[in-house]
Amino acid sequence: MKPPKNRGPRRTTVQRPFLALTTGDPAGIGPTVSALGAASPDLRHRCRPLLVGNAWVLTHFCRLPSLKINPIADLSDYRDAPGVVNVLHVPHPAISSLVPGRPQKIAGESAVLSLRTAAALALRGQVCGVVTGPVSKESFKAAGVPFPGHTELLAALCGAPRVEMLLAAGPLKTLLLTRHIPLKDVPGRITTETIVSAVSFTDGRWRKMSAGRRLRWGVCGLNPHAGDNGLLGAEEKRAVVPAVKRLRRRGLPVEGPFSADAVWAKHAAGAFDIVLSLYHDQGMIPLKTLYPNAVVNITVGLPWVRTSPGHGTAFDLARRSPPFKNADPSATLAAARWALALSQKHPPLF
Amino acid sequence: MKPPKNRGPRRTTVQRPFLALTTGDPAGIGPTVSALGAASPDLRHRCRPLLVGNAWVLTHFCRLPSLKINPIADLSDYRDAPGVVNVLHVPHPAISSLVPGRPQKIAGESAVLSLRTAAALALRGQVCGVVTGPVSKESFKAAGVPFPGHTELLAALCGAPRVEMLLAAGPLKTLLLTRHIPLKDVPGRITTETIVSAVSFTDGRWRKMSAGRRLRWGVCGLNPHAGDNGLLGAEEKRAVVPAVKRLRRRGLPVEGPFSADAVWAKHAAGAFDIVLSLYHDQGMIPLKTLYPNAVVNITVGLPWVRTSPGHGTAFDLARRSPPFKNADPSATLAAARWALALSQKHPPLF
Repeated sequence: MKPPKNRGPRRTTVQRPFLALTTGDPAGIGPTVSALGAASPDLRHRCRPLLVGNAWVLTHFCRLPSLKINPIADLSDYRDAPGVVNVLHVPHPAISSLVPGRPQKIAGESAVLSLRTAAALALRGQVCGVVTGPVSKESFKAAGVPFPGHTELLAALCGAPRVEMLLAAGPLKTLLLTRHIPLKDVPGRITTETIVSAVSFTDGRWRKMSAGRRLRWGVCGLNPHAGDNGLLGAEEKRAVVPAVKRLRRRGLPVEGPFSADAVWAKHAAGAFDIVLSLYHDQGMIPLKTLYPNAVVNITVGLPWVRTSPGHGTAFDLARRSPPFKNADPSATLAAARWALALSQKHPPLF
Repeated sequence: MKPPKNRGPRRTTVQRPFLALTTGDPAGIGPTVSALGAASPDLRHRCRPLLVGNAWVLTHFCRLPSLKINPIADLSDYRDAPGVVNVLHVPHPAISSLVPGRPQKIAGESAVLSLRTAAALALRGQVCGVVTGPVSKESFKAAGVPFPGHTELLAALCGAPRVEMLLAAGPLKTLLLTRHIPLKDVPGRITTETIVSAVSFTDGRWRKMSAGRRLRWGVCGLNPHAGDNGLLGAEEKRAVVPAVKRLRRRGLPVEGPFSADAVWAKHAAGAFDIVLSLYHDQGMIPLKTLYPNAVVNITVGLPWVRTSPGHGTAFDLARRSPPFKNADPSATLAAARWALALSQKHPPLF
């Protein structure tokens, strides 16, 4: 009689990777949602989540009675247990005078220190990726940070010559051609060159990030009805149509320009893998309307994986007394899933 | 033993009202979707649908084998039977040379003739409202019609000094502050006066249209993150914030400016009855993305009820051989339901 095969327990010797989650602006909702996200059993099953931020904020500000906050100074102190949230503590001398729910110098400084720490971990390969919590442009300004946001700061920290901002929510993906600029400055930035260059760069980088998978692109027009053949605006004929032609000559599967109000239903039905939005709200409105709690911001062009939940600091929520009952870690968890998938070069749905 | 109460058959002696449906551009999808809509048992239960358009187009172009097209010259000839679609025939001498699926002079002329006929019926009170099929701006131009679209033409036909365009889809409603103009011209049109005047006018007219129900308004910002307190654009501080203050002083429940990418989820959750969009795609993207086949255009300011399906002529579809398998009358039916509700001063969901 043969003995039953003993395959042993299903535990593998490969350790789950560390994934860094910066807590973002300490006066906002970031520390709470990243702690709730880090405690998620589903996320803990796939990786070892590591908060990077000020531990005092988590213990004294957020008041999360169901979680045990474990401040650590080194990854070797990581305690891998349910309900334990490990925080790589990033000190700030004046953190105890933090005021909840509004932009301020201390908050901007603390957020930047956490980002620098997480970027260093990622550059050294100690974490497989970084999920960045929401920061406030006004806190950054108050702290004298010479960058309008996360993405530009991280690009500078890594010496990345160019980065692009890709957003994902459910089956929808979009690249923003222009980002945080006034709407009146958008038409002047729409040129054949900016479109060709953004699509080519992102397409090439994405293929590296996703082990060679090709993207099928849909391109938005700028004006109502994509300009209605020139009757409602000139940018389509001047810039978008020539850009699409040039990209197709290079062999990229690119279609458009489409009316921006019709392209998203086509995209949701599977006509494209990604849509090029010409301005911030053209891409953010459909994603946030269809998936209010699941928008993920993915940076293309950094030497390591960085994603971010697509919401802001929610200062209005953070002004109330903690714990914040409405704090929803869904977008943080979606960002973490994307970071893990990209770190294994298996982005979902492409 | 008491005899059972005999309430008699539930038929009432009040005749169902006539509802006009213009067929729109005859070279597009309009005649097909309006005929399919008019034949709907649900719509026939509530009213007597009456197509207004060229009967030859319906019989020779659309090829709808399941429907019996009944061309009539007068309402007294109306045949009220299942499967019968009554068409108030609007002749055009050259209609037999119509080419399907593209803008042309004949199509623009025929569409305008139908609109004039329907407007006359509505002004005389012979129909309770008009649902207008999609027209082509290019066909209008080819026919020398001095109006960019339906709304402006109907306003001129009725001598209405001012009309506004309200869009509804599912629980969402929006008023477009600016409509069919290039995006680069939008920022210059955003002033305190234009916002105050559009909201006050629509609010007042809507109360008449809906027997006094008040609207709670949410107002969009123009720039990313509603200008982020002036960092990303000046129009919010210059125009939108003062307009909201002035409207509130007048007693209107108006809130904002909100980030245009966050306001729609709030609206869907019931925070407002209606959102003021500052430009075409700001309002059309969320409605068409969430409800691709159910957007309804409602004109505010005409002396009679006018609604319209929110889609275009779909020339690409109409270029194929009829009958058009993908022709979907859902938006036409939604527009008809709105027209009937408004004609009884009971608009839904307000």
